[in-house]
Amino acid sequence: MSGWLCIAGLGPGDDAMVTPAVSQALAEATDVLGYIPYVARVVARPGLRLHPSDNREELDRARAALALAAQGERVVVVSSGDPGVFAMAAAVFEAMEGRDDWQALDVRVLPGITAMLAAAARAGAPLGHDFCAINLSDNLKPWSLIDRRVRAAAGADMAMAFYNPRSASRPHTFEQVLAVLRETCEPTRWVIFARSVSTPQEQLLCVPLCDARPEMADMRTLVIVGSSTTRCVGRFVYTPRSAS
Amino acid sequence: MSGWLCIAGLGPGDDAMVTPAVSQALAEATDVLGYIPYVARVVARPGLRLHPSDNREELDRARAALALAAQGERVVVVSSGDPGVFAMAAAVFEAMEGRDDWQALDVRVLPGITAMLAAAARAGAPLGHDFCAINLSDNLKPWSLIDRRVRAAAGADMAMAFYNPRSASRPHTFEQVLAVLRETCEPTRWVIFARSVSTPQEQLLCVPLCDARPEMADMRTLVIVGSSTTRCVGRFVYTPRSAS
Repeated sequence: MSGWLCIAGLGPGDDAMVTPAVSQALAEATDVLGYIPYVARVVARPGLRLHPSDNREELDRARAALALAAQGERVVVVSSGDPGVFAMAAAVFEAMEGRDDWQALDVRVLPGITAMLAAAARAGAPLGHDFCAINLSDNLKPWSLIDRRVRAAAGADMAMAFYNPRSASRPHTFEQVLAVLRETCEPTRWVIFARSVSTPQEQLLCVPLCDARPEMADMRTLVIVGSSTTRCVGRFVYTPRSAS
Repeated sequence: MSGWLCIAGLGPGDDAMVTPAVSQALAEATDVLGYIPYVARVVARPGLRLHPSDNREELDRARAALALAAQGERVVVVSSGDPGVFAMAAAVFEAMEGRDDWQALDVRVLPGITAMLAAAARAGAPLGHDFCAINLSDNLKPWSLIDRRVRAAAGADMAMAFYNPRSASRPHTFEQVLAVLRETCEPTRWVIFARSVSTPQEQLLCVPLCDARPEMADMRTLVIVGSSTTRCVGRFVYTPRSAS
């Protein structure tokens, strides 16, 4: 019995941003589990079982992966981006609670290029100074906490990266966030909408806050809001290293 | 004349975490510029000029790189981690200010695995919920701003990743940050000291805030402070996806 479990990040979409460490784990795996579109990125081969599953089944998927590793299989759970940022790694550790046998397994997290880094790179360097990463999905937290964190970030003049800004099932959260930003930031503050970065569907839009509209974001968009010092130079947006 | 400039992230240290996109840019380059230890990671080959330079010469290095690209060279500026997070990308865009010729160049940022993602992966998933990244170097900003941002993050119960926590030239900043955290967080809050992750010198230490001491960090350490919900399971530390 020499099973193991890797929780691996596939990066934003382009295979040229998958690390060799992740490719190596996939090459050695017997089983790959993950959300359907992420498992679809893994190349099939003899001896590799693919287990795609639906969104919002993270804990069941984590338990299935741990059970396979406990049986001696070599298991990779794939996330897009980085598995530790609003993705599968936390779900796997949650699934380990109360299970000493699973806690003793060979479990590793293999980092990936998370969406905000890919989006920032495409735009320039908007996260070049202090920043926050905030998940706007309110499936797992109340709006009051999102509101408090956005106000704290704006009050301390940090740039912000918003994950999962808007979906069909919760179209209003991002609208509320924009309203909070309009209350707390100047109208010329830069807002970047980065959609499907590094894929053929990539779209990049950079507008001042006064022109930002909720419809500019969907579930494939990563939104970056600059700090008060964020500025444009040519076609690039960046936050200077000096805060003064 | 078909010069270009890539600002590329080499990741935390292990070559297995350098993306193929970055390796490809290095394979095509005529010139590589960067801080001495980062340029030392690039394999020498005929036709490749290496330009190592000292720390705190970021703007001069950026100008030299832009000038080489303007002359038609294929230039890579290397950073460790991700070039857009407290690294060279912002310096290159700063150097472009007022220079229309440099703004028109073919300039791309190639993301990398930034230190906090590598550190988080090694520890478990402490950044699995909302978090901030704060640079504790006060070379480029006043202590009052660091203080304000740490208090904002703690007040909104976000996890925190601290870059450049402590160096010989400013030994007291991190001590002050620990004092602010002791004022604002419970003594059992988890603090992770991750040093030189993915290199042979790697060290990982996880202690409650009441046991955290300034000497646990140096210039190669990335410090992660959990949120109030961050917990241990077996040998791992993670922040649950649900905030309630």
